[in-house]
Amino acid sequence: MMSARGLIVVAFGGNAFQSKGDKGTVEDYWRNAYIATEIIVKLVEEGYRVVVTHGNGPQVGIIAEWMALGLKEKNIPPMSLDIAGAMTQGWLGYILQQAIYNKLRERGLFPSRVRGVVTIVTQTLVRGDDPAFRDPTKYIGPWYSKEEAEKLAREFNWSFKPDPRGGYRRVVPSPDPIMQVEINAIRELAEEGYIVICGGGGGIPVVEENGKLRGVEAVIDKDLDAERLATALRADTLLILTDIDYAYLNYGSENAKKLTVVTATEALKHYEEGHFKPGSMGPKVLAGIRFVQNGGKLAIIAHLSKALEALRGESGTRIVPG
Amino acid sequence: MMSARGLIVVAFGGNAFQSKGDKGTVEDYWRNAYIATEIIVKLVEEGYRVVVTHGNGPQVGIIAEWMALGLKEKNIPPMSLDIAGAMTQGWLGYILQQAIYNKLRERGLFPSRVRGVVTIVTQTLVRGDDPAFRDPTKYIGPWYSKEEAEKLAREFNWSFKPDPRGGYRRVVPSPDPIMQVEINAIRELAEEGYIVICGGGGGIPVVEENGKLRGVEAVIDKDLDAERLATALRADTLLILTDIDYAYLNYGSENAKKLTVVTATEALKHYEEGHFKPGSMGPKVLAGIRFVQNGGKLAIIAHLSKALEALRGESGTRIVPG
Repeated sequence: MMSARGLIVVAFGGNAFQSKGDKGTVEDYWRNAYIATEIIVKLVEEGYRVVVTHGNGPQVGIIAEWMALGLKEKNIPPMSLDIAGAMTQGWLGYILQQAIYNKLRERGLFPSRVRGVVTIVTQTLVRGDDPAFRDPTKYIGPWYSKEEAEKLAREFNWSFKPDPRGGYRRVVPSPDPIMQVEINAIRELAEEGYIVICGGGGGIPVVEENGKLRGVEAVIDKDLDAERLATALRADTLLILTDIDYAYLNYGSENAKKLTVVTATEALKHYEEGHFKPGSMGPKVLAGIRFVQNGGKLAIIAHLSKALEALRGESGTRIVPG
Repeated sequence: MMSARGLIVVAFGGNAFQSKGDKGTVEDYWRNAYIATEIIVKLVEEGYRVVVTHGNGPQVGIIAEWMALGLKEKNIPPMSLDIAGAMTQGWLGYILQQAIYNKLRERGLFPSRVRGVVTIVTQTLVRGDDPAFRDPTKYIGPWYSKEEAEKLAREFNWSFKPDPRGGYRRVVPSPDPIMQVEINAIRELAEEGYIVICGGGGGIPVVEENGKLRGVEAVIDKDLDAERLATALRADTLLILTDIDYAYLNYGSENAKKLTVVTATEALKHYEEGHFKPGSMGPKVLAGIRFVQNGGKLAIIAHLSKALEALRGESGTRIVPG
């Protein structure tokens, strides 16, 4: 299928599914998804091929809560975190898939411009010796008492840390993504004219041992995974959509300065100086730097509601070669 | 990619993930999936292209339990049943996808014979005026008291029925599947040499209203959905794997008679005479009949552990044209 422009990888943050103040009802999910979906449809109208990825932090947290309750109240064996991640890919992939499809049909873009919308359950390969495995830092799921935490640690071999807000929470490592196991299928579908939703939540983390994949109890940063996806697909643009309008130097301070256009070299200098918050703006900027260093032309970090302005250079932080 | 034989659609029952006596731990899931996967690998070795589908009854039940607990204990808004179905597609699709991939690599069949293994999140279209919507019959999720059931019925517009085993349970309709919304992507990937896992749990039930898809609170029989898949893909064979070795006439009685080879016409006669249990062997036989009536050459109903014998005609019930 011909496409006037190139391929764009769009990474949705949590606000594609939940707005501030939402209770997280089914209706909230659909309403937010339809708003986010508007962007995808506009990109198609402008001639882009689109691959979509998304976060899953709140949803994997909910599943962890459910599993903890199921174990405590009804002795239902909890699933592992790789399986919980797979569940969120079905959950959010389905919602995006249906919302995008409906909007494309409404605008007359299906089947003329897009052949379909599909979610691919995606495994992301990480290194078994990634240093992250020695120091789990990502809090996940509910708060426990010290005694409960110790019991679960023994029973399931989970790690716990005291949470700054009180109590104990499970912590898991966040290793660096290498590649999506399903990248060939993703590429072929995207080339054939499908909108592909994949790598949800950064992908299901797997390691390779003796030629075999094995799921691990970890979470992958979805923006770093989006870079791997965009690089492997030789996308023109990596568009990271979040709830902040720009990456800032000295964010939150009096002399905060928004970054509009920045070369990868400059961005890396800022990154190494600690301007971007770890687990938040940090990995977004790092993903942008890596994408450009790996041959990408343009990485954009922008507010979800400013995606099209950002593509025209009227909003957001653009990381460019140099 | 060339294939010496044709396409086979394999429908796994619940015993592909849980054996009798299993507690449903993560280890149970993987152990059972690896056993089931052995069949897929053998089919690839024998030259078949393979599309895999599977049930999700126990898993959607677990998610319904989790959601009920989350609502009661922590006021977490429950997701709808279409979303719960999507979660199970991620859950079980991931497990099958990884297990099949690992076995194919172990046997040297990847990437030489199979280009990859992918799970497609699948929506299945049903009619909004399907008579099933007027009479919900499928029990789902936990047991409630009359008072709890009435409260939930008001709050979420759910239907409840007294369960023969006591208490009240939610009931949902089981409409007839029409087609998989994602059938084109499934077909193309299968033709390109991928093993495609799709239509899990019969697919996420959706209706079309004013040119838009909308998820509905229902469950679809996975064998009837497998027929739709096999027919749309013009598969040579529909292989339905379950925990009974044959379809029987007068099942469970003294003069039970196993069916080895039966024409679609004969099978339909037996079906209409009420020989096959609704919700169990009934839809399997009906799926087989429909597949053959729609141009398929062979539908087989067999025990999971006898799949290859069944393909050779040494076990299982074969429904053939005529």
